[in-house]
Formats: sequence, C-alpha cells, structure tokens
Amino acid sequence: MDNYTEQSAERLREIQADLERQYAGYQARNLKLDMSRGKPSGSQLDLTNGILDRLDGYMVEGGIDARNYGCLEGIHEARKLFSELLGIPRDRLMIGGNSSLNMMYDTIVRHWVFGTHGHTPWGRLPAVKFLCPCPGYDRHFAICEDLGIEMIPVPMTPEGPDMFMVEKLAGSDPAVKGIWCVPLYSNPQGVCYSDETVDRLASMHTAAPDFRIFWDNAYGVHHIYEECHLKDIFASAEAAGNPERVYYFFSTSKITFPGAGVALLATGPGNFAELKHHMSIQTIGPDKLNQLRTVRYLKSAEGVREHMRVLARELRPKFDLVLNTLERELGETGLASWIRPKGGYFIALDTIPGCATAVIELAKEAGVKLTGPGSTFPLHHDPLDRNIRIAPSYPPLDELKTAIELFCVCVKLAGVRKLLADKKA
Amino acid sequence: MDNYTEQSAERLREIQADLERQYAGYQARNLKLDMSRGKPSGSQLDLTNGILDRLDGYMVEGGIDARNYGCLEGIHEARKLFSELLGIPRDRLMIGGNSSLNMMYDTIVRHWVFGTHGHTPWGRLPAVKFLCPCPGYDRHFAICEDLGIEMIPVPMTPEGPDMFMVEKLAGSDPAVKGIWCVPLYSNPQGVCYSDETVDRLASMHTAAPDFRIFWDNAYGVHHIYEECHLKDIFASAEAAGNPERVYYFFSTSKITFPGAGVALLATGPGNFAELKHHMSIQTIGPDKLNQLRTVRYLKSAEGVREHMRVLARELRPKFDLVLNTLERELGETGLASWIRPKGGYFIALDTIPGCATAVIELAKEAGVKLTGPGSTFPLHHDPLDRNIRIAPSYPPLDELKTAIELFCVCVKLAGVRKLLADKKA
Repeated sequence: MDNYTEQSAERLREIQADLERQYAGYQARNLKLDMSRGKPSGSQLDLTNGILDRLDGYMVEGGIDARNYGCLEGIHEARKLFSELLGIPRDRLMIGGNSSLNMMYDTIVRHWVFGTHGHTPWGRLPAVKFLCPCPGYDRHFAICEDLGIEMIPVPMTPEGPDMFMVEKLAGSDPAVKGIWCVPLYSNPQGVCYSDETVDRLASMHTAAPDFRIFWDNAYGVHHIYEECHLKDIFASAEAAGNPERVYYFFSTSKITFPGAGVALLATGPGNFAELKHHMSIQTIGPDKLNQLRTVRYLKSAEGVREHMRVLARELRPKFDLVLNTLERELGETGLASWIRPKGGYFIALDTIPGCATAVIELAKEAGVKLTGPGSTFPLHHDPLDRNIRIAPSYPPLDELKTAIELFCVCVKLAGVRKLLADKKA
Repeated sequence: MDNYTEQSAERLREIQADLERQYAGYQARNLKLDMSRGKPSGSQLDLTNGILDRLDGYMVEGGIDARNYGCLEGIHEARKLFSELLGIPRDRLMIGGNSSLNMMYDTIVRHWVFGTHGHTPWGRLPAVKFLCPCPGYDRHFAICEDLGIEMIPVPMTPEGPDMFMVEKLAGSDPAVKGIWCVPLYSNPQGVCYSDETVDRLASMHTAAPDFRIFWDNAYGVHHIYEECHLKDIFASAEAAGNPERVYYFFSTSKITFPGAGVALLATGPGNFAELKHHMSIQTIGPDKLNQLRTVRYLKSAEGVREHMRVLARELRPKFDLVLNTLERELGETGLASWIRPKGGYFIALDTIPGCATAVIELAKEAGVKLTGPGSTFPLHHDPLDRNIRIAPSYPPLDELKTAIELFCVCVKLAGVRKLLADKKA
C-alpha cells in the first residue's frame, strides 16, 4: 500500500473512485452497527452472571444487617477487597452506589457549594478553570460544561498530559482548580501515565491551595495485552506534602455489570472527613446488598484479577481485529495514526487534520455509529478535527469486522477527498 | 390514675419517691434498647427475603439489557408499577437508586447551583428560606442546615401544617422557596393532610415564582390500622395553574429493604426536563437490576398493597403495645399528649413544656436510646422542649415492652420533678 499523501492528483482520483464504489457497496447493505460507547457486549456480561445468584446471608462485619439502613462508608468487606486491590488504606475508601461518575459529579458540586478546608466555594468565584488532557473523556468535560467551568485543553504525550503546560497553568493561575486524569489506558488513547508524570502531578506547585486532581482510574485493572504499572499517587502526594490533593475514583462497572456495579472514592483524611459529613446529610447509606453481592462474587483482589483475565480473553479478539484491520488498511496510507493500547476500552485514531467529522458522517450514512465529532475534547471542539474514539467492546466479532472495515474505507475516502481538495486550493 | 398536674406538692413528692425507686430498678438492669430510628426489625426484613432469590433474565421492555448502561429514568416495568401504585403518569416518574433522601438532596442542590426555569440559582441569593412544619423529619431539616437555608417552623394541626401561616409566609416573602411535607402519617406525628390542606398548598399564591413543595410521601402505602386517603396534589396543582410546583418523593425503603430499595421522584414536565438534563450529566443511569428485582418481587400495585398488609401485621402489635402502654401509664396524668397514628413509623409524644430533654436523658441513663432532644425541629430547637419521637419498629416485642414502660416512668418522673420545681418557683 502506498502513502496516499505522496500521490498525484490523478492517482488520488483513481483511488477515490475505487473507494466510492466500496463505500456504496457498504451503503447498500443497510448496516446498523455501533462502535460509539465503551459498553461491554452481552456475551461479555454473561461471564459475570454468577453474581445474580441467590444472596444467602446478609450479616456483615460489625454485626451489621446489610438489608437495613446505615454504613455510609460501605461495608467492611468491600473496603477490604478494594483496599487490597488498589493499594489504598481501607479508611480512605468510601464505597458507594453503581456510578463513579455520580461520585465525581457530587465531589465537584460539593466544592462548588461548600468549598473545602475553608476556601471559597467554587460557585462563588468569578471564574473556575479545569485542565483537560485531550483527547479525554466526554462525560468529564460535560460536568464542567454544565457547571460553567472553563476547560483548558492540555495535549497528551506518550507519558500522560504535557506536564510543562500543566505545571505552568496550575502554578500560575489560582482559578485553575482541578485536572481530569484517566491515568491508566487513558480514555480513549490508551496512554499510561509514567512515574514521572504521577510525581510531577502530585508534587507540583499550584497557585490554588484547593487545587484537586480528579484521578479517574476507571481502567485500573482492565489489562488486555499486558499490565501497565501505575505509580501510587497518594504516596507521591503525601511525600510531597500534598495529602489532600487527590480524589481517586474507581468502579466495577466494567468488572461486573455497567448498570449494577459498585463505585468508590478515595481521598486524603481532611477531604474524607468533609465528604463524610456532607454525604451523611445526602443519604443514609449505599446499597450494601449489592456491595455484598459484588464481594461474594469477586472474593478477593486476586479474584478480581483472575476475573479480569477472563474478560480480557473475551475482549482481546476484538482489539486484535480492530488493531490489525487499522494496521492493514491504514498503516501505510499516511491518513491516520493511533496508539496500540495495552488495556482499557478504546482506541483513539487521529485522521489527517480536518477529516474526523467527515469520517464519522460517512460511517453514520452507511449505518455505523461512532462517538460524535469532537467528543474527546471540551465543548466538542477538536481544533484539528482529527480525533475519533473507537469502542470495540460492544458489537459481536462478525459485526465488528464489518464495522471496522467500513470505518477504514471512510477514513481513506475522507482523507483522499481532503487531499484532493487541498491540491485544488 | 390521677391527673398529676392537680396534685399537692406533698402528694407529688410521694409519687416522685415511688417513681425514683421504679427508675432505679430499671437502671439496675443494664438495658441496651433502641427506639431512636424508624428502622424495620430483622424479623420484619425477613418477610421480604424472597427478593434475594436468583435473578433470572435481565432483558426489560424496550429490548434493554438491565445489566448494561443506560435508561436514566429507570426501567419501564418499575415506572409502570409505581405509576399504578401512586396514580402518577408514568412519564413523570424518575426511578432512581436506593435513597429518596439522596433524590431530595440532589433536587435542592440543583436549584441551588442551576436555579430553575431561568430564575436565579438559590445559592446566589442573599437569603433562602424554607417552611418547616414541626414536628418534622430531622433529615429534611439537616439538608437545609447544611446549605444555610433559613428554616421557619410552622406548627402542625390535625389537618396538616397551619395553612394560614403557610399562605402568609409563602405569599409575602420571595425568599421563601419551599416547604417540606410528609403528607401521610406525617413524620413523626401520624397526621394525614386533609384535602383542603392539599388544595391550599397546591393553589396558594407564592411570592417566589420558583417556590417548590417537597412532597415526601415516604409513608404513602404504610397503613397499619386503616388507610388514610391523600388527595392527588399533582391534579390540584395543575387545576390551579401550578404544574411545576411539586416534587414528589417515594421509596421502597420501608416496603422491601431500607438499604437496598428503589427510590423515585415525580414532578411537572418542565422540572422533569431540567432534572433529566442535569442527571444525564451526573450519572449514566440507576441500578436497573435492583429495580427489576424489586418489580419481580412486588409484581404489581396490588402486590405492593398485599405486601404492606403483611408488614402491617408485623408492625401492628408493636404500635398496639406502645399506644396501649402510653394510654395506661400516661393517659390520665396530664403529663403527655399524642396522636394515635393510623400508619407510618412513628409516634410523637408531647410532654408538659420543658421536659423532653430530661426524659430523653433519663431514658438514656437507663439504657434506652431515643431520638435526641429537639430533633423534630429545625436546628434541634424545640421551643417548648416537649416533643419526643418514638420509633417502635426496630426492637423485638419483649424489648419494646421494657423500653416503653421505662419510657413512661421517665415521662412521669421528669414531669413530677418539673411540677415540683414550678411549685417552688
């Protein structure tokens, strides 16, 4: 295969004619496929159906009846399991309901309404800004958008966010109150934060004393090919004298069931006391029976790891298929680049500038749904219009094969059209 | 038995000596009993254990896999059941997680942060006030306290809150943004709101266009002796041209399990659209498996009513015991008054002024835990120091018998001491 960017206009027109034919062939098939969201497939969920078994016994550590009220921090058994799994002291863990997104949202809203450690509530400040490593997670950005928080895009590097830019912005502007991080298999690029990135985030000077890192370790145990190591940010932050800098989020949404998992939050002791107070007003306690169900099913930290190996065997053929197809169809074309993720749920592909919207539109017109244009950037604004998030987990393998092959045709077609338009201009 | 308030000081001193002996007898028994919270007992919860059975099948109406993400408003099957049970149109119902308190808190916080229908967010106003019918529910008042909302106590009548006062305050002061209501078996008095009260709340003029009724119908189907009728406040509000006035809350916390029930919120179409938007940022969706579990177990509206009859048979002997003991021990003393509730979870007893704290303290010293003094009033301030909330549901019958008998001794002892002190003064 040739590099399309080096071809003559004439050759490109020949290629385009062929691609248009291929594309029309897909259109004629009336496809209805979905690579838009990081949802597990039905067959993946079936691997966890044992959790639906009858729950026998509901008394938990401390003589607590898990059916009844109480136990705001979650049941002891769940705190113990996740403490071992994540290497976070048990008394820093608040085990919640089914949504870590909800815990993130509520955490920001608490800062918005009440402030923290005596600092002005963010909602009373003239401006609040968050650093947003991009490509990033659309639902993080949506929280900021809803609250009117100004989002500052920060480019990603193979080591994590561009730390020179992060240090400069957080260190100079007291309105910069936080940063969104997906440190492992970063959503959606597949980047793992390096030890140096973790240390610099944990130790950097921040102009705002109430600057917080929103550490969404959503894919902390979601290894597919090999296991990325992630440095303990709490240890780094404490060593640097910043014990209250980090809010750490995790969930079993992609370990057990997305709709009925268990989410958790961990943070420094001062933050923890504050959030415990506010949460004691907000609710009497989480669904302890679902926590118990989850712990009984997963058994232990090693039980989680073993379960994730089972899920990886289900997911790996899908990632193989997508990555091999991308490599085969686009590898030499000069029309796209991507990182081979070692885990997580996504592949982020960059087209040549100015093509992402066209690719997504072409795919949609042929019946393949992708995440909308710009969705990996704040306010859906991808300045170079080039990033596309691919979620291979949901469709069955045969559908995924069709979807990703069509996708590659769309990337090539949009790319060739763009190259030809550029030559004309 | 004589009316203690009509006795001579000499006779009162004889009575006191006898009561002190009785009290000392209880103290010697090293009791450890709890009538403080409206928690079901273990044996009551056992009546619902069938809900813990294996969940077979998880596909719900609309081809939705309840294990996976999505379905923000809750599953169709749950909306249908609660629509039939509560007489609220299905499309007004948002079925949530395990806590209606959480839904109330989040609703107020949304008004605080975002405002509603273009009105200034409550958090940006110089003052926000809520009307608080008293005695009322301590967790409602705690939400206001945490946010710094000024609470205006409104006395209760046998028909509900004093509507002349409510109309005057809500009608004249635009800072009055809401009222807390527990319309059926009001927590804790057992009062049921009359049709006229419902109509007046729904139709009254409010100085604030964004005034909202927080209608916590926590005990809507929790009949113990007979069924109180509650007028449909949505119909009244709509007839009066106030379709957005009401937020209605309900849960199965005291139908299935307090820790693992299903909560819901219902409101007008404009509010609903707003909250759906904000909730779509906050979470991907509720735990649909627990909703499915709940619906499968309860089956239908009539299934809920039948289940509540079963629970009433468990609770009735406890209410009988408490009410009969109060009547026998305190009925003629002039030292206490209360309403016989027809349902709900509580009995609210008024001592003579200035005795509630002393009674609660006496009971505590003898090993019986009661809800703390003033807890049925905003900021824990019971101006006459006379209201005590009794929760008979949690202790087994034999323990409850001891607890309530001791309680009556404490009411008499504190009352006699107070009468004697008043005579001296």
